[in-house]
Order: sequence, then C-alpha cells, then structure tokens
Amino acid sequence: MDFSSDNSFGVHPAIMDAVLAANNGTAVSYGGDDITARVKARFRDLFETDLEVLLVPTGTAANALAVSAFTPTVGAVFAHAEAHIAVEECGSAEFFSGGARLVPVTGFGARMTPATLAAALEACPEGNSRVHVPSVLTLTQATECGTLYRPDDIAALAEIARSRSMAVHIDGARFANAVAALGCPPADIAWRAGVDVMTFGATKNGAMSVEALVLFDTSKAAELDRLRLRAGHLLSKMRFMAAQMDACLADGLWLKLAGAANAAAARLSAGLAALDGVRLAWPTEANEVFAVMPSGLSAHLDRAGARFYGWTTVGLAGTDAMPGKGEELRRLICSFDTGTGAVDRFLAVARGYNG
Amino acid sequence: MDFSSDNSFGVHPAIMDAVLAANNGTAVSYGGDDITARVKARFRDLFETDLEVLLVPTGTAANALAVSAFTPTVGAVFAHAEAHIAVEECGSAEFFSGGARLVPVTGFGARMTPATLAAALEACPEGNSRVHVPSVLTLTQATECGTLYRPDDIAALAEIARSRSMAVHIDGARFANAVAALGCPPADIAWRAGVDVMTFGATKNGAMSVEALVLFDTSKAAELDRLRLRAGHLLSKMRFMAAQMDACLADGLWLKLAGAANAAAARLSAGLAALDGVRLAWPTEANEVFAVMPSGLSAHLDRAGARFYGWTTVGLAGTDAMPGKGEELRRLICSFDTGTGAVDRFLAVARGYNG
Amino acid sequence: MDFSSDNSFGVHPAIMDAVLAANNGTAVSYGGDDITARVKARFRDLFETDLEVLLVPTGTAANALAVSAFTPTVGAVFAHAEAHIAVEECGSAEFFSGGARLVPVTGFGARMTPATLAAALEACPEGNSRVHVPSVLTLTQATECGTLYRPDDIAALAEIARSRSMAVHIDGARFANAVAALGCPPADIAWRAGVDVMTFGATKNGAMSVEALVLFDTSKAAELDRLRLRAGHLLSKMRFMAAQMDACLADGLWLKLAGAANAAAARLSAGLAALDGVRLAWPTEANEVFAVMPSGLSAHLDRAGARFYGWTTVGLAGTDAMPGKGEELRRLICSFDTGTGAVDRFLAVARGYNG
Amino acid sequence: MDFSSDNSFGVHPAIMDAVLAANNGTAVSYGGDDITARVKARFRDLFETDLEVLLVPTGTAANALAVSAFTPTVGAVFAHAEAHIAVEECGSAEFFSGGARLVPVTGFGARMTPATLAAALEACPEGNSRVHVPSVLTLTQATECGTLYRPDDIAALAEIARSRSMAVHIDGARFANAVAALGCPPADIAWRAGVDVMTFGATKNGAMSVEALVLFDTSKAAELDRLRLRAGHLLSKMRFMAAQMDACLADGLWLKLAGAANAAAARLSAGLAALDGVRLAWPTEANEVFAVMPSGLSAHLDRAGARFYGWTTVGLAGTDAMPGKGEELRRLICSFDTGTGAVDRFLAVARGYNG
Repeated sequence: MDFSSDNSFGVHPAIMDAVLAANNGTAVSYGGDDITARVKARFRDLFETDLEVLLVPTGTAANALAVSAFTPTVGAVFAHAEAHIAVEECGSAEFFSGGARLVPVTGFGARMTPATLAAALEACPEGNSRVHVPSVLTLTQATECGTLYRPDDIAALAEIARSRSMAVHIDGARFANAVAALGCPPADIAWRAGVDVMTFGATKNGAMSVEALVLFDTSKAAELDRLRLRAGHLLSKMRFMAAQMDACLADGLWLKLAGAANAAAARLSAGLAALDGVRLAWPTEANEVFAVMPSGLSAHLDRAGARFYGWTTVGLAGTDAMPGKGEELRRLICSFDTGTGAVDRFLAVARGYNG
Repeated sequence: MDFSSDNSFGVHPAIMDAVLAANNGTAVSYGGDDITARVKARFRDLFETDLEVLLVPTGTAANALAVSAFTPTVGAVFAHAEAHIAVEECGSAEFFSGGARLVPVTGFGARMTPATLAAALEACPEGNSRVHVPSVLTLTQATECGTLYRPDDIAALAEIARSRSMAVHIDGARFANAVAALGCPPADIAWRAGVDVMTFGATKNGAMSVEALVLFDTSKAAELDRLRLRAGHLLSKMRFMAAQMDACLADGLWLKLAGAANAAAARLSAGLAALDGVRLAWPTEANEVFAVMPSGLSAHLDRAGARFYGWTTVGLAGTDAMPGKGEELRRLICSFDTGTGAVDRFLAVARGYNG
Repeated sequence: MDFSSDNSFGVHPAIMDAVLAANNGTAVSYGGDDITARVKARFRDLFETDLEVLLVPTGTAANALAVSAFTPTVGAVFAHAEAHIAVEECGSAEFFSGGARLVPVTGFGARMTPATLAAALEACPEGNSRVHVPSVLTLTQATECGTLYRPDDIAALAEIARSRSMAVHIDGARFANAVAALGCPPADIAWRAGVDVMTFGATKNGAMSVEALVLFDTSKAAELDRLRLRAGHLLSKMRFMAAQMDACLADGLWLKLAGAANAAAARLSAGLAALDGVRLAWPTEANEVFAVMPSGLSAHLDRAGARFYGWTTVGLAGTDAMPGKGEELRRLICSFDTGTGAVDRFLAVARGYNG
Repeated sequence: MDFSSDNSFGVHPAIMDAVLAANNGTAVSYGGDDITARVKARFRDLFETDLEVLLVPTGTAANALAVSAFTPTVGAVFAHAEAHIAVEECGSAEFFSGGARLVPVTGFGARMTPATLAAALEACPEGNSRVHVPSVLTLTQATECGTLYRPDDIAALAEIARSRSMAVHIDGARFANAVAALGCPPADIAWRAGVDVMTFGATKNGAMSVEALVLFDTSKAAELDRLRLRAGHLLSKMRFMAAQMDACLADGLWLKLAGAANAAAARLSAGLAALDGVRLAWPTEANEVFAVMPSGLSAHLDRAGARFYGWTTVGLAGTDAMPGKGEELRRLICSFDTGTGAVDRFLAVARGYNG
C-alpha cells in the first residue's frame, strides 16, 4: 500500500527487457547509437512533426536545460508557485540560467489561469528596463495537484506568453497521465497549442531513469547539445537510457501504463470520496488523489502500513480543500504498478476505521 | 576489434543482474533505499575510513560537483592541460563554480609534476588580490594517456596544494585501472596521499551509468546534497544506480574487471611494440595503449574494421611520441570485455601489413 | 519642485570641493591612496568597532557583493518584497551569487516583522535538503516606504536570522536618514543589533557616486576584494571616490544633510496632511512622504511642474494607504538640497487647487 | 617621476571643470539627462556611424559586459594571453558570462597574429560539440605592451573571427593612444575593420572614472541595458560621469591628451635607448616604454624615487626583450600629465648612473 510516489515503484518488465537487449556488443557512445536514433524517429511520429530530442536522466535536468536555453540571464521564468521547478529543484532554473528569476504564478489546484498569469506578468511591464524580461512560461502537465490543462487552456496561456515574446515549456513528468486522461493527440497539448519545448517524462511511468527534452523549436538544439554535456547530462553509454524510452514508446506502452495509473487513482478517488468524513480537495484528473480526511483516519491508515504523505499548498484558504479542525489533507499517488489490489486493500482498511 | 573507448562496451552480466534484482517492489526514492546505504558502507570498507558518498550518473557530473564545492567563484582549479575536465567537458567546472578558472598544468604523457604544478601556480602569487585564489588541484588517475601517479607522486603534488590551502581532487574515471596496476590499497592513492575528494568511476569499468563522488573531507557533504539536486543529478529511482555500484564493489569485481582490461592492454601493447616501424608513445601502464605507427599500417587496420582513434596532445615535440613523416599517433583502449581474442585478431591483421 | 528622487539632485559643495582637492599630483591607484585609508579609519570611529570597508560606485554593487559573499549558490536571501534588491536591481543578487534565490517577505510599509519573516522561513524547513539554505537576511533602512526599523526591531529580526545561521545585511542607501531620524549611535542599528555587513550609502545623500560596503564580520574581506575587482567595481582612481566619502563623514556632514532632507520631508508631510482630501499612507519617518490624494490634485500639481511619482506596493488592500475611487497614492522624496522654499511652493500650489 | 601607471595621475582640469559645471540643479537620473544624450551624439560623430553607448565606471565593467553579451555560456572568448581581461580582472569575463572560457592566444609584445589566432582556434574545431563555441575575439588596442594593431591587422584578425561567426571586441582602455599614434580615423580601427563592440577608455586618459561601451552592432543594446543595471554599473547620478566623457570628446581633448602621453613616451624611449647597456624590449608605439636595463641602473632609479614596475610576460625567450644576467625588464608608462620635465629628470638621473 505504497501511495507515496510514482518514483517508489520499479521498472516495467518490458522496459527492463529492452535494457537487457541493448547489452549486446559494442556501440557508439554518447548517443551515436542506433537506439537513440530510433527514439528520435519515434518522437517525430508521436508528435506528428519535426523536432529534436535530447535524453537526460532526470526531470530536473530536462526542465532546467530546457528553460535555461530559452531565457537570458536577465530573464524571468513564470511558473506556478507549486511547480516542481519552483519548489522541489533547489533553484535549478536559476543555476542553469546564471541567475534568471522564477516568478510564481498563483492558481487553485496548481493550475494557473490566463488571469493569474496576466497578473504575474504585471511585475515586468513592457518597456521597463529595470525589471526582468519575461522569457519563458513553464506549465506542468499533469500538475503537481494531479489536475490538467485542456488544449484550450494551454493555447490561451501560450497566447499570452507569445504576446510578450516568451517561449512556452511543458514540464511533462506526468505528461503520459495527461494524454491518457485527455484522450487527445499529444501534439494537441504540445506544439499545436503553442508549446516550444517540453520535458517528456518516462521515469515516473515505469522507466528506470530517462526523460526526453523535446524541442519543437529546434533552433536551440546545437546549443543544448553543449549545455547538456557541460551539465554532466550526456551519458556515455546512452543506449541503455535510449532503450528505456524506446520501449516506452513502442506499441503505446507509455499510454497503457499511464492509463493504468490513472484508473487506479480513479478507483481510489471514488472509494475515498464515498467514505464518511472524507472529501476530495479537487477532482482527480490523472494519477494523484488529494483527499481531506479526519486525522484519526489518516493515523489509522498510517498504522496499517499505508505510505502516503501529508500535503499543503498555497491557495487553500476559503476552499473545500482547506482541512478543518481535526482534518488533514493527504496526497496519494498511483503508479503504473499500483494495481487494483493495493487500492482495494487500502480502501478496506479505511472502511474499517471507526472514528 | 573495437578499441575506440571503454564506453563503447556494454554492461558486465553481474552488474546487469544486480539491476534486475533491484527491481523488486517499492523502495524509498532519492537515495533513501537500502542498496544506496550498502554502497556507502562498502566505500567505507574499501577506503578504510569514514567518508561520504554521492552517486551520480556521469563522471562529468562527479568532477564538476566535486570541484565546485571546493572552489569559490574567484578560485582557480589546477588541472593538467589534457585532463578530461579541461578539454572534454565543455566548461563544466567553470559552469558549476559560477566562473572559477581552470589553469592548465603541463607535463608529458598527461602527468603533471611538482615542477610543472609549481610553475603553473606562479600565475597566482600569494598576497596578490588581482588574481584567482588557488583552490583545487585535480589529478586524473589513470591519466588520459593511460599513465599513472604513484602514491608518492600524489603525496608530493598534494603537499604543494596543501601549502597553498588547496583541496585535492582525483578524477578517477579509470581509478580501478590504476589500483589494479599499482596493486596498492585504494587509500594509498587517495586520502592517505592527501586527497580530499574523488570521482570513483564505474561506467568505463563495466557499469551502465554510475560514478561515486567520494568525500574524505565530509564538511561539504550537506552542501553537495543540494548542489547535486540542483544540478539534476539526484536520481529518483536511485536503487538502480546504486545496484550497479553495489555489484561493482562486491567480491572485488571492480578490480577483476580493471585487471582484465589492463591485461588486454598489456598484451596489445607488447604485440604492437614488437612490430617493425611501431613504437609506444609512452609506457602502457593501465588500459590504454598509445602507439606511433606508419600511416599505411593504421589505414590497413582501419580498412580491416578496427576502431581506434588518432590522437594528439601537447608536449609531444622533441619526444619519441612525436609522429614523424608518414607516421601517426593512435590510441587504443581496452575494456573489461575486450578479451584476448580481439587483441590477437587485431595483432594478426597488423602483422599482415606489408608496408 | 523636484520630488522625484534624491538621485535627481547634485553634489553638495563640500563634497565637490573634496573631489577637487583630491586632484593633486599622483597617487597609488586601486585604493592604495591616503584618502581611502582615512575613510576606513573614519568608519571605525563612526561605528566604534573594528571593521573593513570597500568603496563601490553604486548601491546595487554594494548590496549584491555583500549578499553574495554570505550566501552559497544554493542559499536563500530573505528580503522584503518591496526591497530595492528584490524589485529594482534586475536580479543582481541572483547574478552575483550564481543563482541563489531571493525569498520575498511581506509587511506593511515595506517593513518586515518577526512574524512575517518567520512565515517566509517556513519555505525552508531545517533538515530539508530539497530546498534552499537560508543564508542572508537583508533589511532596508530606511525602507523603500521611508519607514524605519528601531534598534529593537533589527535585533529581533537578527535573532531569528541567527537562529537559522543566516548573516544579516542592511541596505543603507538611506541609512543616514535613519540615523538622523532615530538619533541613535549608528552602531545601535548595525553590529550591536546583530548586523554582519551593510551598505552605507552616500550617493542619495549629497555625494556624486560612492557607497561603502562595511564589514563588521571581516572574515569575508579578502574574498570580497576579489569579488569587487571581478565585478568591475574596483576603481583605479579610487581617491576621487574616497574623497567623497571622506567629506561626507568629516564633521558629521552626512548627518546634517540627512537631517535637512528629513526636515524638508516632515514639513511637506505636515503640509499635505493638513489639506482637505489628503491623507498620509503611513507616517513620514525619514525623507520620503507617501500621500493619498485626489487625482485632480495630483494632476493639478503635475501641470504646475511638480515632479513626483505615482506609487503602488503590495499589502495596501484594507489599509488607509489604499487609494479609493478618484484617488492616487503618490511618493515625494526630499533631498539634502530640497529646501524649505521648494516645499512651501509645492504646498502653495496644492492649496490653490479647487477640486 | 611616477611612471607606474596612467591611473596614478589625476583628472585633467577641463574634465574636472565639466564635472563642476554638471552640478547645476536637478536632472533626470540613470542616464536620462541631457549630457548623456550629448555624449551619445558625440560618439556617433566620432565614429561616423550609428551606434549605441553605455557609460560605465571601469574598463573591467565595460570589457566584461561587452564580452558577455556576445557569448553564450558555452562560448569561448579568445584573448591574448597577456590581455587585461585574461590576467588582471580575476575572471570577470567568466563571471559575467556564467562560465564561458577564455582561451589564451600567443604573440610577441602582447599582439596576436592571424597565425597565432588560427592556432588557438584549433582547440575548437567546427562541428565538435564537445568543446566550446568560439564566440568573441577581443583585441587590446593599444596592447598591454604598448604596441599597436594597424587597421589591416585588425581587419585580418576580424576576418578570421567572422569566418567562425565570432563577434569582435576591442579593449580600448588606451584606444586614444592608438588613434593618436596611428593618425587614422577611429572608425578605421573599429567598425570599418570589422569590430562589433568596444571599450572606449577615458579614465587612463585624464578622466576621473568613465569608460564607454560602444556598440556598433546595436542588437544587444536592450539586453546590455539590463546587464549593466544588474551588475551594479548603472550610475544614478549619471550626469557626472557623462560630463567627463563629454569634456574628453569636446574639441578633440581626448586626442590631445593621448598625443601628449605618446610624445612623453617617445622622448623617454629615445633617451633610454641611447643609454649604454639599455635596450628597448620592443618599439615604443604608444604611451608605454619597456626597456631592458642593468639591474644596477634600475636600482639606482628606484633609489632616486622614480616609480616604475618590473615586468615579465610570456614569449620573451629567444628575443631581445629577454633580460640577460644582471638585467631587468621594466615598464614605464607616461600619462597625459607626465610632461617633458619628469621625463628629462628621469633621464638625467639615469645618465648619472655609473654601473
């Protein structure tokens, strides 16, 4: 009953098999191998457009490299106040960019809106050379709260960004969960909606350690090659990282795994919502469930060995998501490998609680 | 007949088995798992001292993080002019340190000497606040030319560094080859010789992608935890990287593999030196062979499908290593998996050349 | 009737005379001259303690150098959300520190409180290595709103900082105005209250271009020598900058000039507050007046040639400082050279307005 | 008899008068004043082209800002090994650029040649993404050895730079001395020879503290506005810095002062060369004299109170400039205010030496 993180889970067997299969003879190092080439072709097919791909081992690396390539050091990067890049990466974007500023954007459930983005942009009025230049808008899809941006949402935000000559980046650590939930072509929430560059995650979705930095605007590809090397993110035995992504993309495995995670979360969400005294903080749209529950219940679940974290975030005040007296807000993440059994065991334990 | 790089080779079966075995249930992410803890214990045993370990996916990451933690931004890092950190990492040390300067040190066969280090240090006289502060000495062991520093060599260089209050770092991408060749306890060419921090490589020695940043001076450990995260080098599913290092260190596998690579290089080196018109640029001390050979011979080998690169370096002029008219300097690297067969096939092809 | 900025005014004659007098023969460059030495001695007397001083041409330089010397690149610098370093320096602290993060602290009238500082610090819980290390608290004295921190205020904030091992910095671009208003020894709102390093401004107070970076914690002095040079802030003909500060400190000129500016502001403040429909946004404590006035009145004053800016800041909502319908919040700054005449002319024009 | 530095001298009276005259009423701060506007117009006239100008207080600031605006952080900046930016600025270019690399170029008398530049560029072969991108060529005019680049020299070097898509920068701390010596229009050794951006120095030439960053390629002007502010080099009371440059450029004062310094150096050079046992290290082309002299003579001069430094540089070996046994290489700098008297007194002392 581990709902602490999608990173607590291991590697899907098909992906591990691909790693094993890649261990065959010698290969050109640093990405000159055949598997890396095949991964690039797969991404072009997947997104129905020309693009460039750089594989890196972590999402922080992909985010920081992507953002830094599109911002001058006097630039401002607009991210939701709850975004991973803002609160979980210890300043990676500032470091990689040589000191650009991250400007927090508000919005309930980790989603910014055109109105909150526009409000944040007021800190950088046009023509004022005493403040940072808005340079990058980064959106997390699915968000840290497991909520989603629809194609129109992204297009509206990207249009604001475009009106200020900003590039648009997607932190897609859970992009697969978003696509699985929205049921749209990946391009519809990427370049067709105005996205220039994205982090396409695989690690949280059954891979061992690989994320793709996907460039729809390929003008920065040569510079990013060097930035990746300089940052220590060019792996010598690249084929083993490429093999993971190759297996993810083959036969739609990435979507199947994300769909399984989403389904487990939906089952868990419905089960929790049906319990007395429990309410969802916001709708469960992908593979994360946020529930306000009696402290007694959460302690009961902890005692039973369930692993899931408490949560807090800005903007709860005045909403249903705000825990009242004797309540807690808890986060539960389902992975590709969580399965119905674990969900049902968890719910059974919860139902057994006598407050 | 691939002698292009130790990175062209794959993963040793025992290491791959360890990765597979780690794929078992859920585990705490970001290094809180049991395997990571075991790796730390193994390093303490191996080096016979207390220390801290941070695992990262590349040698560039380990080098840059290690060096940057020990240099202020107005510091100078002294490295051999041929060192990986100087010529193959696109400025990683400068980037990670926010602009510290890499000062090249000369020396034949990629080895600096007390005299060449002292000469380089003259660029930063004590008490002159207009120049950089000497902060880190980084030595590559085995060097880029496959040569070695003996324990006394390191101690002598470290003493000079210490006299200027500099920290001492070892880039040990091929540290295993050095230990296998020198036959000394690892500590003798590490902390006992005055080393504060090192990169302990495994990737070139049969792993998939893992290097250990080993801190004998543990005062920077907490800062490095954050620097690693910020640089995108904290892997979420750490157990799979830790499993590789764990397998390397178990039962001395790392030494066996390095010994095998060294033995293949010795066999290749002896075979080449016995050929008419071929001479070694400098002695073969680890797993790299540098030979000056007739251009006709090297072309003959290329045509036969052998993969090995041409080489050039500073300081050849006036030495035996300098190719004469109609000659070339070529580099041949042997890996853990090169084997006697490939060496002998290569030598047979070479012997078949009629100049 | 120029109330736009204390920077719009020129140089006090005594300071200009000192610059002229310094133009006498040759002198050792880069701060080895006698005047620079005398300035250091004056600061030691003024603050009744040993200290180190580095002169630089701008307050941004002094702030950024001071802060960056006391923060690691993974550090967090806590500043009021309205502080110059946060909103007027285009990211200087982030740039000089290689990417440290500026964390905004709230508080009415540009003053943080122990409660708002403690709340901001919650973003960086102790023992969490995924977030920045709190490293520097920077306070502006007098604040951007012309309000003041009393000795006890600073001591209370510094104590919180100390409990998290943070250094304390004062941005004293208008420190003279604060001392003149508080009537305390400078040390009481500096090292005696727990301050480690400060920017002691002179430019806004009648000098041409000079600010002193004053180090009460002298451990960073040698590093700052180099940081200043590297940032291009070590002036070759230092004696002319030193002469300005020398004249400021001689015979208490700095306090007289600041007192004159404060007195002009007090006269202006009282005059404005007595007008129908005008109210002060907060008390006038130094040389800046913030008044809420009818838009008609401010337009009337603009037409009459008065120069003073509109103002907005966070935290106005729900306070008297919030302009209502048909009102504006305007800022008026008095300098050492504003004089009674300009104040009275301005007030006369204001009184002549028939809404 | 102070020949230690042109920075040891004070401010020319006409320039000081201009500073005094600027102290008149209030003015828009941060460069919005009339004098700053006039300086820009003067530069356009002087260089016979459209351009942008940013005034800063030091040459290090101008150099570092200029270079950093034209290099990515993975770029390489090519400078002579003896250039100020390479050896006297403690890594300013690396700092401002976030870690770009300075690549030293050799050449006798601090002058690089097409051959030495081409040799240095071989470190960054085209198409190799593992090494830095050549981005800026910076030339010092006059050089640190007081030698000059002719218009054709600059054009030839700039052509090489252009062939690698590099920008060309001139460090013109002593540009006036070069123009006075060459007798050419300034444009001929600037944009007409392929220069994109330059540092136009005034401080060493009789000003107090002002250098102009002149942009012939104006595409970076808006970014440089912010970079200057962020680096703390935007002076609030800009008019006093602008007044200095204004006076320099009025009526050709800058050329007259540089001509006077050059003439003093020529007189000194001729007098020294005529002494027994003294020889010039290289021809005196601007306002710096480098002479090899008996150690006894230099000690005699030191005792007599003459101030001039010993010198050493790379590339002396095998040239006349190399001091032999019992000899020293010394540098003597003449300023606008050195005058015939000081030169003749110095020479008289020298002639009085009985070895």
